[in-house]
Amino acid sequence: MTKPFKRILFTGAAGNLGQRLRPHLGQFADIVRLADLADLGPAGPGEETVRCDLADRDQVMAMCEGVDAILHFGGVSTEEAFAPIMQANILGTVNLYEAVHKLGIRRVVFASTNHTMGMYKTTDLVDAGMPPRPDGYYGVSKVFGESLSRYYWDRFGIETVCIRIGYCWPEATNYRQLTTWLGLDDLVQLLRRSLLTPRVGHTITFGTSDNPGRWWDDKHARFLGYKPEQSSAQFANRVPDAANWEEMQDITLTYQGGVFLHNGPKYRS
Amino acid sequence: MTKPFKRILFTGAAGNLGQRLRPHLGQFADIVRLADLADLGPAGPGEETVRCDLADRDQVMAMCEGVDAILHFGGVSTEEAFAPIMQANILGTVNLYEAVHKLGIRRVVFASTNHTMGMYKTTDLVDAGMPPRPDGYYGVSKVFGESLSRYYWDRFGIETVCIRIGYCWPEATNYRQLTTWLGLDDLVQLLRRSLLTPRVGHTITFGTSDNPGRWWDDKHARFLGYKPEQSSAQFANRVPDAANWEEMQDITLTYQGGVFLHNGPKYRS
Amino acid sequence: MTKPFKRILFTGAAGNLGQRLRPHLGQFADIVRLADLADLGPAGPGEETVRCDLADRDQVMAMCEGVDAILHFGGVSTEEAFAPIMQANILGTVNLYEAVHKLGIRRVVFASTNHTMGMYKTTDLVDAGMPPRPDGYYGVSKVFGESLSRYYWDRFGIETVCIRIGYCWPEATNYRQLTTWLGLDDLVQLLRRSLLTPRVGHTITFGTSDNPGRWWDDKHARFLGYKPEQSSAQFANRVPDAANWEEMQDITLTYQGGVFLHNGPKYRS
Amino acid sequence: MTKPFKRILFTGAAGNLGQRLRPHLGQFADIVRLADLADLGPAGPGEETVRCDLADRDQVMAMCEGVDAILHFGGVSTEEAFAPIMQANILGTVNLYEAVHKLGIRRVVFASTNHTMGMYKTTDLVDAGMPPRPDGYYGVSKVFGESLSRYYWDRFGIETVCIRIGYCWPEATNYRQLTTWLGLDDLVQLLRRSLLTPRVGHTITFGTSDNPGRWWDDKHARFLGYKPEQSSAQFANRVPDAANWEEMQDITLTYQGGVFLHNGPKYRS
Amino acid sequence: MTKPFKRILFTGAAGNLGQRLRPHLGQFADIVRLADLADLGPAGPGEETVRCDLADRDQVMAMCEGVDAILHFGGVSTEEAFAPIMQANILGTVNLYEAVHKLGIRRVVFASTNHTMGMYKTTDLVDAGMPPRPDGYYGVSKVFGESLSRYYWDRFGIETVCIRIGYCWPEATNYRQLTTWLGLDDLVQLLRRSLLTPRVGHTITFGTSDNPGRWWDDKHARFLGYKPEQSSAQFANRVPDAANWEEMQDITLTYQGGVFLHNGPKYRS
Amino acid sequence: MTKPFKRILFTGAAGNLGQRLRPHLGQFADIVRLADLADLGPAGPGEETVRCDLADRDQVMAMCEGVDAILHFGGVSTEEAFAPIMQANILGTVNLYEAVHKLGIRRVVFASTNHTMGMYKTTDLVDAGMPPRPDGYYGVSKVFGESLSRYYWDRFGIETVCIRIGYCWPEATNYRQLTTWLGLDDLVQLLRRSLLTPRVGHTITFGTSDNPGRWWDDKHARFLGYKPEQSSAQFANRVPDAANWEEMQDITLTYQGGVFLHNGPKYRS
Repeated sequence: MTKPFKRILFTGAAGNLGQRLRPHLGQFADIVRLADLADLGPAGPGEETVRCDLADRDQVMAMCEGVDAILHFGGVSTEEAFAPIMQANILGTVNLYEAVHKLGIRRVVFASTNHTMGMYKTTDLVDAGMPPRPDGYYGVSKVFGESLSRYYWDRFGIETVCIRIGYCWPEATNYRQLTTWLGLDDLVQLLRRSLLTPRVGHTITFGTSDNPGRWWDDKHARFLGYKPEQSSAQFANRVPDAANWEEMQDITLTYQGGVFLHNGPKYRS
Repeated sequence: MTKPFKRILFTGAAGNLGQRLRPHLGQFADIVRLADLADLGPAGPGEETVRCDLADRDQVMAMCEGVDAILHFGGVSTEEAFAPIMQANILGTVNLYEAVHKLGIRRVVFASTNHTMGMYKTTDLVDAGMPPRPDGYYGVSKVFGESLSRYYWDRFGIETVCIRIGYCWPEATNYRQLTTWLGLDDLVQLLRRSLLTPRVGHTITFGTSDNPGRWWDDKHARFLGYKPEQSSAQFANRVPDAANWEEMQDITLTYQGGVFLHNGPKYRS
Repeated sequence: MTKPFKRILFTGAAGNLGQRLRPHLGQFADIVRLADLADLGPAGPGEETVRCDLADRDQVMAMCEGVDAILHFGGVSTEEAFAPIMQANILGTVNLYEAVHKLGIRRVVFASTNHTMGMYKTTDLVDAGMPPRPDGYYGVSKVFGESLSRYYWDRFGIETVCIRIGYCWPEATNYRQLTTWLGLDDLVQLLRRSLLTPRVGHTITFGTSDNPGRWWDDKHARFLGYKPEQSSAQFANRVPDAANWEEMQDITLTYQGGVFLHNGPKYRS
Repeated sequence: MTKPFKRILFTGAAGNLGQRLRPHLGQFADIVRLADLADLGPAGPGEETVRCDLADRDQVMAMCEGVDAILHFGGVSTEEAFAPIMQANILGTVNLYEAVHKLGIRRVVFASTNHTMGMYKTTDLVDAGMPPRPDGYYGVSKVFGESLSRYYWDRFGIETVCIRIGYCWPEATNYRQLTTWLGLDDLVQLLRRSLLTPRVGHTITFGTSDNPGRWWDDKHARFLGYKPEQSSAQFANRVPDAANWEEMQDITLTYQGGVFLHNGPKYRS
Repeated sequence: MTKPFKRILFTGAAGNLGQRLRPHLGQFADIVRLADLADLGPAGPGEETVRCDLADRDQVMAMCEGVDAILHFGGVSTEEAFAPIMQANILGTVNLYEAVHKLGIRRVVFASTNHTMGMYKTTDLVDAGMPPRPDGYYGVSKVFGESLSRYYWDRFGIETVCIRIGYCWPEATNYRQLTTWLGLDDLVQLLRRSLLTPRVGHTITFGTSDNPGRWWDDKHARFLGYKPEQSSAQFANRVPDAANWEEMQDITLTYQGGVFLHNGPKYRS
Repeated sequence: MTKPFKRILFTGAAGNLGQRLRPHLGQFADIVRLADLADLGPAGPGEETVRCDLADRDQVMAMCEGVDAILHFGGVSTEEAFAPIMQANILGTVNLYEAVHKLGIRRVVFASTNHTMGMYKTTDLVDAGMPPRPDGYYGVSKVFGESLSRYYWDRFGIETVCIRIGYCWPEATNYRQLTTWLGLDDLVQLLRRSLLTPRVGHTITFGTSDNPGRWWDDKHARFLGYKPEQSSAQFANRVPDAANWEEMQDITLTYQGGVFLHNGPKYRS
């Protein structure tokens, strides 16, 4: 069966999500080029690997050559001191879009984060038309990426789907994780939709499964046809019920960003 | 069992939708009056037929006499030169509402079209409160009908449900059809809701089934209680996946109107 | 198994909803304190009862002592002359929140009503951000309660979930009831979500089951994770279909408030 | 010259605003009936006076007989214990609208207050379509009045203009007063517009002069044609400039309600 | 001094507005081509005249040849039987845009009307993003024109400014005229802005002077920089003040369309 | 006379705006600390100067010590290669807010730019609640600053006014400059309001004078009380009128960003 693309690039392949997604990427292209700063092990069938420092303009250009589309999951993916975030997430994304532009690549799927809106309250319903409210350096760096990719769409017609990924780990064990959980199969579906929908323009979509509570309204990306088939409801019984009002005074329950409220900003590297 | 109405009128009965809907109309009324400019064949049980040129004021008046409600599917239903559209869809609708007003008929279900908004992009989410963006003479003529019927509601209290019908054919074979597909049973359900909901005022609703991707948000018509039970998901495997970026540059993928972008306006009759 | 609360208070326990809910409250707390002006019968296991006139400041203070949270269902629950409504619903709610504030109670679930918006049309889609449109003294008194509790949240951080309860009786037998029906199990689920969600701030939510037609959009309370599992669809066949246009001229079909349009205001006590 | 009305009623004539407005009311009607619980002194030319306890249904009925329109400024006009507010502002307003309804009076101008929205922040822009955020019992009682009068419009077609009056004293001496100041001539103009505009329906308008800073957007009442001709800019030099950050931590600078944040609610009468 | 255009076309030059505007058009172009079905008298300096039936495709094509821009004021400008409205305003506008498209003309200024929204209430604030609410055949025909020109912008990049002209006569003598009055100099300014602003896309703007009351919010056309310098305030003393509640029951005071509510639709030609 | 502050910091004092603003800053504080990477000449009365590389964390900390408030105009102020923009505008702003946070400084006025929204069309009306649409690296870097300062407000209560400065040069000579022009006195007024308004939270305001055309709606900052007293109308006669359709095809007339559309992004440093 013909695959949709000849070659796609997946950056950040050695990271947590990268490792879990790797076995699912083969359906999208004849060749999946996996990239990371860290070692990726041997390439499997239909894979090729490349070491790349995103902060290095030339390496990024080389990494992007010859691909049809990019899944950009590389960079720092948690709260950190600003220096490494700036190198990987800010300069790295600038380098990537310069390459995309010069090489005529048509579409990017950008791994953004729910921490772009972590300072919204847990009683808010957030959609993609509302102003970002990041909860730390990491979140601000992803706002930068969303804004930069918007520019490349408005000015040059390069399409990007920004996925504000929720809590994407195998299990959810507290209230916040229950609400923001994203199952791996659902993420794969969302990647598929983001890659194969004929037009995506510049779209911000929220990566969550069909969980009981919802903080995010994905209406602006409804055309993608993403329909989650997993749900955090399966983990509900692991989250204790007792309403201990004292514990519940914690600020991390008030804001969507959760523990990132305590984490950032990191002034000490 | 008592049927809701004594007599209803269905115009455009010889058309594509008319022929497919005809067997389903008996549930609504003791007598279904079928009308068209073309031959309708012999009347079946509970049917009566009438030949009518919508552009002829007197014929229209006669056609409407004695009915409780009207399903107005008559007129030109595709892009055409302006002259026939004007006669059937503009003058015809004016004639119809004059008759409705004079005869004291209380409710009309008006077959409008998704081509009233065909110039929205395929990445947009459109609802009934947004300004129309027609994609040709046909679409503009239906905007006219929606606007005229709005006037008859605002000024005279005559109720109309405008159904912006999607792609209503047995099968969907490309991306646009998958997104806009309307199954026949769902259309029948929507007609039922439009006829029997106690109050409808002037309502614009979107006629689609429960397809994976959605371009239209039907929130303004939620009170109708329409709940599609069909889905274009059944046809998904007929639509090829391969993302051929070249082919995908076609303007008909950019706008919701699809091939109507190439069709209209027809300057040559 | 540990229950979420040590002691909760349920007011209005002798009323219609009170009697039906009583058997379901034990899951929320070790002790359920039931209160009403009327006799409540003997306390069952895990119950304690108290007689209380909501208009009496001291009685209310006593009633509230020692509880972790309150389900406030007490007061007049239908259209009435203004005097009793003022005593129970206005003065009573003022007394309650004074006690809540002085005693340091953290959360109230307030039984509001769909009659706070009964003058919206049956073709409208109402959400919690839209201005109230009450349909009588009863509705206005509940607007008062919603507004008072909003003040206690904005100024003192006391959390309240206002549930605009629909038609909560065992069966639905007309159009309005079909649209606004709330099953008891769904109400219990909504109480659970309102009590146990870590943060609720001041939230207005709509208490309906998953009925076919919808007049209300609960998006502002989506974070609660309420997911109705009952539906009035089971009663649809009891509601006659016949569209008798004459009967349908009744004003109670035009406005969401239904028969309350005829009831209020009661100038004669 | 013919005056617009034969007889109008002005309640609260002995209050602060009542005394200042009294000399300006003669332009509206041949006879101005002044009412208050307190002594009003001798009636001047074109005046008649009446003593009335708003909480007394019969007195209110008598007070309203024979008038064409009402300017309802009576009641408690500041934060107070709840009992007097309930009697004058809640029961009093209920009594008034009962009389208005029974006597067929067509229009009321209702003195509401900016304290219906005192819990909005001083950095917010508030309009009449946004939910009230009262800052105490007084504010909540005025939300009640706005909601009650809305009901009388929706259900019975009785028109009311609710004026959310700003700081209406001769001089402004601090930041909050500068922003919310309403000059007396502007108030008179606003009364004139509220009485004489052919249609007002139920309208909430913001009573401020053309001050430099604005917290309120009066767009929903633009049809009234109110055009303030006074400005608090004349008092700007009386408000000291020094930005003493310590003093500025006061909560009364954060919320629009100002000192009412400290005043209410009054639990001790 | 160089004029902005070489040749512009003004249709409807023999009409009321046409005659009053004619002396002001010379500033826009070296040659002003005046067109009408009726006699236009001798051409003055810088003028040329043409007789044209808008319903005649060939005549319209000839009329449009060689012009840089069009001010389209031709057609029926009041409530009428449908037949003449259809010929002049519907078929006529279709013919005009076909010519514009084929001839490569870049911009049209289209004389639309406030009667596209005459069924909004006089207490509403209407902007260009809200759905039309026409008050008769005339209003519906202008909705058609706005929608058709939208299509030509969306599909072919032809720019149109639709001016919803208010009451454009020398004097205002009643409430509605006071509110909707448009002074001639202001109209000329608006034409100038519509012709000379570098980009206008498809814009709907409201043609009123700086009158005290406002029903329309022109925010979507703010970029045009139109700043009315006339005001109906000069006529205010001609409009009697007396609030005669009986007379004020007239439906023409309730809706923005005024007497058009009584005029339309004209079933008898 | 007492000045509002003891000491304020103005960064970027050697830049274009810095030099023009310098003589106007003395009114705000007893001591104005001027900072720049470039030479600032000798300090005048009430001034002190400091050389500072914004990319140097320690230098920035030292620069900020002992000040009450900051006017942050430093950094790159036009389209440039990304490296210098990243150092000055991204790292520099991060360093600044770290210092502000650690030193307990309460308020920053941040010189943002209209290029954060340069990809909106010249027919759009933009307000501060709409998503940014930057037109190059420079614009994206300012989006970063707005987002970072939002975080410091949401998380730590540090107030910032972001001024999206328009075209702030002595004279306007083309259409875009006419629309976006900001007079120096108006800018000084805006700085005054931004510094002295008791509460500003995190506010984005648009820095333009009272020009005829408007692309920006400053409603979200209306509380600031900024009232421009200058206007670009004085330069209108310098902008030629002639509508040369060919020239007008330039993309820089389509988007608000103007020539920045051609400038960025600069891939070659």
